[in-house]
Parts: sequence; structure tokens; C-alpha cells
Amino acid sequence: MTRVDVELQLAIENLLARYVHALDDDRLEEWPEFFVEDGRYRITTAENFERKLPLPIIYADSRAMLRDRVSALRHANIYEAQRYRHGVSSVLVERVDARTAQATSNFQVVRIMASGESMLFASGRYLDRIRLSGETPQFEERVVVLDSRSIDTLLAIPL
Amino acid sequence: MTRVDVELQLAIENLLARYVHALDDDRLEEWPEFFVEDGRYRITTAENFERKLPLPIIYADSRAMLRDRVSALRHANIYEAQRYRHGVSSVLVERVDARTAQATSNFQVVRIMASGESMLFASGRYLDRIRLSGETPQFEERVVVLDSRSIDTLLAIPL
Amino acid sequence: MTRVDVELQLAIENLLARYVHALDDDRLEEWPEFFVEDGRYRITTAENFERKLPLPIIYADSRAMLRDRVSALRHANIYEAQRYRHGVSSVLVERVDARTAQATSNFQVVRIMASGESMLFASGRYLDRIRLSGETPQFEERVVVLDSRSIDTLLAIPL
Repeated sequence: MTRVDVELQLAIENLLARYVHALDDDRLEEWPEFFVEDGRYRITTAENFERKLPLPIIYADSRAMLRDRVSALRHANIYEAQRYRHGVSSVLVERVDARTAQATSNFQVVRIMASGESMLFASGRYLDRIRLSGETPQFEERVVVLDSRSIDTLLAIPL
Repeated sequence: MTRVDVELQLAIENLLARYVHALDDDRLEEWPEFFVEDGRYRITTAENFERKLPLPIIYADSRAMLRDRVSALRHANIYEAQRYRHGVSSVLVERVDARTAQATSNFQVVRIMASGESMLFASGRYLDRIRLSGETPQFEERVVVLDSRSIDTLLAIPL
Repeated sequence: MTRVDVELQLAIENLLARYVHALDDDRLEEWPEFFVEDGRYRITTAENFERKLPLPIIYADSRAMLRDRVSALRHANIYEAQRYRHGVSSVLVERVDARTAQATSNFQVVRIMASGESMLFASGRYLDRIRLSGETPQFEERVVVLDSRSIDTLLAIPL
């Protein structure tokens, strides 16, 4: 029977879990730290992704750009008006080489408004390239592929 | 403390994850390959399941029947009109014998329409009997028990 | 690379999975058994939790109190009118000492009405303190932190 690399699988699941708890707890300042210094982050739609259209909704190719985005969000103050709750599942991990892994997972995000109302906010896939050589695994690249093409104007928030 | 069979648990979770990614990526032709040659697949409602009523919404007892269903879906062309996103969680695995395991898990499926609108499409349990003796684990039986009894007419799609 | 304690992680995930299957299968009588004899259970809102307001929606500090609650629910007969389906994910586990662990996880609960209609019922975090010294892990404390402050009157049900 094909064997799963147990240590690697759980190390990646741990990274993915810490990432969503940081976002859901509104610890946005920790978000860039999940990436390597020149890490890439991109949110796109499934439609554009499949057509290979270079039209990401968000794009960053360094931790510095991610930090700028956090500052902008804190200044605009739109992030704190509601809560988000991620569900991440079906995590598939593949080792690329000694220091790199790839992961694919499903996510669903619920948004909870200040009024108390909840709604399904977004769903899609995370496509990750992860560096394993550091003290803790970090994203070299995280591509967020949204299922829906109707984008909320608040989507400047990290997913 | 009771010990979880780590290798078995992760091998089954990997099977369940590969299954939903095949469906969510619209790689329907791969779907029958997750079953053994005479594998059984059934979608039923919790209500009928509890009353032991033999009224499955979908029933197949061979890989050939699953392939026929894929052909029918491709011909009818209804599957591609929308996307689906599965969330699978709380996977309980039990070894039955040297070559067989049983698994119970929870699922929620979101449907994303071409218009961009998303909705909770289905929720329920997977009740699986899995053969472990092959190169990779495969379903001997997968019973999909839907929580809701109101069935969408499009429910001919695999879950 | 930081290592996840594989055995501990899967033992806790197994506990969390068995817990939600007991609830979703309406095996309410088993619910108190997931706690140690003087186990504490509390449902609160994120808002109250952050402000450290001592206003839990439900509070119990013994298995006996949990059993009383089950009796009350069975007598009131409101629990069986609908189904619930939990999704638990992003489980972070930390060892406290030789016989204790802490866990944080995300949950989403769907409610399925007798009419067949489904809705997102609740989302939030589980904050758990777990005793590891028994035959199987048990909750010393489970705090359910709901994202939304608008509480359904039926929320007497366990989460």
C-alpha cells in the first residue's frame, strides 16, 4: 500500500492550521511571517486560473508587500468590522525535493457580520509551494483559487 | 491511552482527499477508479437509511456502472454548469481485518453557480468499506447518507 | 524543522471526531462521557470571551450537570426535530505536561430542518484542555466560542 509521509503531512497540516487561526483571530501582523522573504501570494478566480489569465485580485511577491497590505487594512479599518472562520480540509501533500513540498487543500470561509448574521463568504482551493528547510515550514508561494467569480469589494482581506 | 493506527488513518484520509479533489476538479473520469472492480456506491437519505428503506437515489455495484454514469453526465452536460467544493472532516477509521478498513466521515458540499452565487448544496456522512490490499486503498463500498430529504433534481452528480 | 507529536495529534483529532459523530448521530447520552468527572463545559460568544464577561450561554462543571442537560433536552424533545452536521478543522495541539494537552480548532455546524431546508447554524472555535492519563483522552474543559452574538433560542443543544 502506498505510504503517506506522516511527519511531512502533519507538518504541512500544522502550517495550514496556524495560518487560518492567525487570520480568524485577527492577528494579521503575523500573516507575512508565514511566507519566506520573497514569498509570492496571489488570489485569483478558478475561471481566470484555468484560462491562465494573469489577472489576480491580489498579488504580492515579497513579505514586505504583505506587510504593506496589512498596514493598509489596519488603516482602512474594514477588517475588524466582521469576523471570518476558515474551514480547511482534504490536504494533499507531495514532496518536491529535500527542501520543498507542494500542497493542495480545500477551503470554505464563513463571514460573521457585526449584526450577528453569518454567510458563506468564499470557497476554493489553496495551491501551495512550501519551503521545508527553515525552523518551521513557510510558503514560497500560496495561490488562492476562488470558486466564484463574483468578488466582494471587501476582498482585500487575506484568505 | 488508546492508540490511533497512524499509517492507516493517514492512508484513508489521503484516499478521501484524492476522491474529493477529483470531483471538485471535474476529473469525473477518475471517479470509478477509486472503487474496486465490483465496488458498490449508493446515495441515500438519513431518513431512509435509518428506516432501512431500500430506496437509494443512486445505486451502482460495479466500476462499469460508475463509468456509465460518468458518460451519461458528460452527455447531459449538466455537471459543468456549476462547481462543487467538498469539505470532509472528522474521519474515524477502524481496521476490520488485515485487508479491510471501515471509515465514517462528515461532509459538506458547496455549489457555486455560473452566476457566481454560492449555496450549501448537501451535507451528510460517508460510510466506507475500504480494501487495503491493493497498491492504493480503494472503496469496496461507499454509502453517502444525505442529511436532507429534499433532493435536488441535479443530484445525479457524484458526491 | 519543528516536529508535530504525531501520536498526540491523531489521538486528539480522534477524540474531536468521536465527539461530533456522537452529537450528529443524536447519541446524546454519550456526550457526558467525553468529559472527566469534574469536567467543565461552557458555550460563550467571541464578544463576551474577549471582554472576559462571565456570561456563558451554557455552563456545566461536572458530568452530572451534563447528564441533567441531556435529560432536559430529551424531555423537551426539541433536539430531534432537526439534524446537525459538524465540520471541525485546523486542529492545533500543544502538550501542557505528561498528562494534559491543549487544543484549538475551528468548527462550522449546519442545521437541517425536518422540512429538508439546510442553513449554517453556528461557527466558532473549540478551546480544549484534555486529560491524557486515562484509557482514552477526555475533556477537562471545553469552551465553545461562538462567532456570532445572535443566539438562537434552541441553542440549549450541545455543540
